[in-house]
Amino acid sequence: MGSDRAVQNYLEGVRVLDLTQFEAGPSCTEALAWLGAEVVKVENPKDGDPGRASFRGKPGQDSWYFLLFNANKKSVAVDLKSPKGLALAKDLARRADVFVENFAPGAVERLGLGYDALREINPGIVYAQVKGFGAGSPFERGLAFDMIAQASGGLMSITGEPDGPPLKPGTTLGDTGTGMLLAISILGALYRRKSTGQGERIELAMQDAMLQYIRVAFAATATTGAAAQRAGSKLLSGKTAPSGVYPCKPGGPNDYVYVYTSRANPAHWRRLLEVIGRADLIGDPRYDTVAARAEHEEEVDAIISEWTRRHDKREAMRLLSEVGVPAGAVLDTLELHNDPDFERRGIMQVMRHKGCGDFKMPSWPVRFGGKTLPVAPAPLLGEHNRAVLGDWLGLGAAELNKLHEDGVI
Amino acid sequence: MGSDRAVQNYLEGVRVLDLTQFEAGPSCTEALAWLGAEVVKVENPKDGDPGRASFRGKPGQDSWYFLLFNANKKSVAVDLKSPKGLALAKDLARRADVFVENFAPGAVERLGLGYDALREINPGIVYAQVKGFGAGSPFERGLAFDMIAQASGGLMSITGEPDGPPLKPGTTLGDTGTGMLLAISILGALYRRKSTGQGERIELAMQDAMLQYIRVAFAATATTGAAAQRAGSKLLSGKTAPSGVYPCKPGGPNDYVYVYTSRANPAHWRRLLEVIGRADLIGDPRYDTVAARAEHEEEVDAIISEWTRRHDKREAMRLLSEVGVPAGAVLDTLELHNDPDFERRGIMQVMRHKGCGDFKMPSWPVRFGGKTLPVAPAPLLGEHNRAVLGDWLGLGAAELNKLHEDGVI
Repeated sequence: MGSDRAVQNYLEGVRVLDLTQFEAGPSCTEALAWLGAEVVKVENPKDGDPGRASFRGKPGQDSWYFLLFNANKKSVAVDLKSPKGLALAKDLARRADVFVENFAPGAVERLGLGYDALREINPGIVYAQVKGFGAGSPFERGLAFDMIAQASGGLMSITGEPDGPPLKPGTTLGDTGTGMLLAISILGALYRRKSTGQGERIELAMQDAMLQYIRVAFAATATTGAAAQRAGSKLLSGKTAPSGVYPCKPGGPNDYVYVYTSRANPAHWRRLLEVIGRADLIGDPRYDTVAARAEHEEEVDAIISEWTRRHDKREAMRLLSEVGVPAGAVLDTLELHNDPDFERRGIMQVMRHKGCGDFKMPSWPVRFGGKTLPVAPAPLLGEHNRAVLGDWLGLGAAELNKLHEDGVI
Repeated sequence: MGSDRAVQNYLEGVRVLDLTQFEAGPSCTEALAWLGAEVVKVENPKDGDPGRASFRGKPGQDSWYFLLFNANKKSVAVDLKSPKGLALAKDLARRADVFVENFAPGAVERLGLGYDALREINPGIVYAQVKGFGAGSPFERGLAFDMIAQASGGLMSITGEPDGPPLKPGTTLGDTGTGMLLAISILGALYRRKSTGQGERIELAMQDAMLQYIRVAFAATATTGAAAQRAGSKLLSGKTAPSGVYPCKPGGPNDYVYVYTSRANPAHWRRLLEVIGRADLIGDPRYDTVAARAEHEEEVDAIISEWTRRHDKREAMRLLSEVGVPAGAVLDTLELHNDPDFERRGIMQVMRHKGCGDFKMPSWPVRFGGKTLPVAPAPLLGEHNRAVLGDWLGLGAAELNKLHEDGVI
C-alpha cells in the first residue's frame, strides 16, 4: 500500500498530548495525526475514552465510533487522580508541543492540568480547550453535546420544512465542526511557534463554532431583517427554481436526485430541458427567467419530476451532469460504503485493527501530490504505555513495571 | 478596540494568492487571513468574484455574502485572459507561498495557471484546489454547488423526518465544511515547508469532504449493516429518551428547547425530573433506565413537553442547564444577531466597510489568550492593485498607470 499513499510528514516531530474524549476533541487531534503529528491519548486505565463504548460492534471491543475518531493515534493509560499519575502527565506535558482537552467545564483545572499549571512548566505549549459555551457567556457552566450546540448555535432553526419544527441536521457538526476550527487554530499557533517558540492558549466553544457554518443564513438576516427561515431542501437565498430533491425510481427512501440551475447561468435551464426531452419549453416565457420559474415553481417541479421518476438516481445524475447541469444523487451511507470508487481513490481505507478486525472507513479526504494519507489503527487502551513513556520520558523497564504494579499506568 | 483583540501574527509573512470565488475556496483563504496571512484575491476587473453579487444589500454594493467570506483580505483586479494579465498573475505566483483556486474543472489549467505551470516557476508553492468531485471519480467533470455535495456526500440521506424525504441541512457544509478541511491541509503543508522549503499539491473534492462530517452515521452502518436512517431531531445512535426538540411558549416557529439525558449518566434523568416538578417519577420502573425510557418514549416526551410548554425557551435552558441537564434553546439567526453577549465576547464583530457601512458578523470564533482576532473589511474590487503590485512585484507608478490604461488591471 505504501506507494499508493502520501508521505505523512507534514507535522513531523510535533508532539500532541491528547486528553480529549468522544468527538469534538478527538476529531481535532485526529486531523493533526493524519498530518503526521505524534498524538498521544492519555486515558484512564479503567475504561479509557468513553467513546470506546459508543456504537460497539461486539461487547468488549472498541467501538466503530472510537476507531473513526482515533485513527493514527497512540494511547497511554494513566490514572490522573493518583499523585504519581498526575506527575507523569505533567512530565509528558513538559515535553509536548500541543495539549488538547474537552472535559466538562472546570474539570481539567481541578485535575491540576489547567493552563496556568502547564505554562509554568512549559511556556511554549500550545494549550487548546473545547467547551460547550464560551467563557463569560450566560451558559458557560452548561453541559453540551453535539445537538445542544446545534440547537443553541442556530443550525436547527434553519433546518427542516417551512411548516415543520426545527430539525437536527444528520451531521455531528457540533462536534466535528468544532474540532476542525480548533485544528486550524492550533496549526496557526504551531506555525508561529516554529520560528518564535511562543506558546498560546486557545479556547473554542461549540455554540460559537456553529456560527461559522451558517453564515449564509446571517446574510439572509442582514438582507431581510428577519430570522432566516427553514426552506426544506431549497436554498435560503430566495427562490431559485428548480432547486430541490426530485424523486427517482424505484422510489426507495433515498431515491432522489438534487437538481439545480444556477441563477447566474441561464444555459443550465436550457440544457436541463433538452436532457429531459422538453426542448419544446425552451424560450417559453412561463419558465425562461429566474423570476418566471420562481412564479411557476410547482409546474417546474412537476416537469422535472415527471422525468426523474423514470430514472434511477445515479443515471439521472449522470445524464444531467454530462451536459453541465448541476445534479447530485442522494447517496446513503451504505451506498457510499459499498461504492468501490471511494476505496480505489483512497478516500475510504481499511483500518486493520488488532481487536476489531478490518474496518473500512472514511480517511482524511484530501490528496497530497495525488495521494491520500495512510490510515493506521486506533490504539488499544494503554497500547503505547511503554513506547511513549520510554521515548518521551526515558523511563526504563524497572520504572515502568513499578508504575504498572502501583496501578498508575 | 486594539487591546480587546488578539495579535493576528500566527501566519505573519505568509502570502496567499487567492483565485477562489463564492464560498468553498473563500472560506478557506479567509481562515488563513484571520490567522494573519496576507491573502490577495485575484479577480476579474469587470465584476470580480461573482459572490460580490449574491445577497446584495443594495444594488451596486458588495453583498453581505461577500463581506462574510472575504474579511481581512486584499483584492487585485487582473484580466487573466490578457497576456499581460496572465504574466502579472504568474509574477505574483512566483512570490506567493500558497495558491488556492476553486474554478470549474479544467478552467485554471486552461488559463495557464495549472500546477505544472506554477511549480516550474515556484517549486516551493503550496498549490491547493477544490473541485466538486474527485479526480478519477465517475463525476470528475461534474459541476457542483454546496447542495450537490450535500446530496452526493450522504448528508441529505440522514437529515429529515423518518417518514419524510431526504432534506438539505441549513448549513452550507458542502462549501464551508470543505473550506475548513482544505485550510487544515494547507497549514500542514506550510508547517513542513517552513523547515524544508518543500512545496505541495493539495486537492479536495466537495463530495469527499462531506464524509468527514457524517462519520457517526458510518458507525451506525457498520453496526447494523444498513444505511443510516433519518431520525428527525433524535440521535442516529439508537434510542435515547429524552432527546429532541420540545415546544416552549409562546409557540413561535423557533420556540423549542433541545433536551437530552446522557445514556452514560443516570443522574441527568433524575435531575430533569426534579426541575420539572416530577420528582414523584424518580425510581419509577417505567422510566428509570435507558431501555425503559426508550420503550415509553411517547410518554417521556409528553411529560417533558407538559413542562417546556409553560416556559420560555431561554428560561427552560437556564433552569435545566443550572442543575446539570444538557439543554439548548433553539436560537434563530436574528436572536443570535441581536444577542449582545456574542458581541461583548468578540464572537460577533462589526466590520466597518467603506461601501456598505457597518456590518455585524460572526468572526473567527476562537479565543487566543482570551481574545478573538480582529475583523478588517472585505476589500473593494481592485482596492489593493497598487499596494500589492508595488509591494510584491516592485512596480512603480508609471508601470501601474500603463497597466491600468491597457485594461490589464
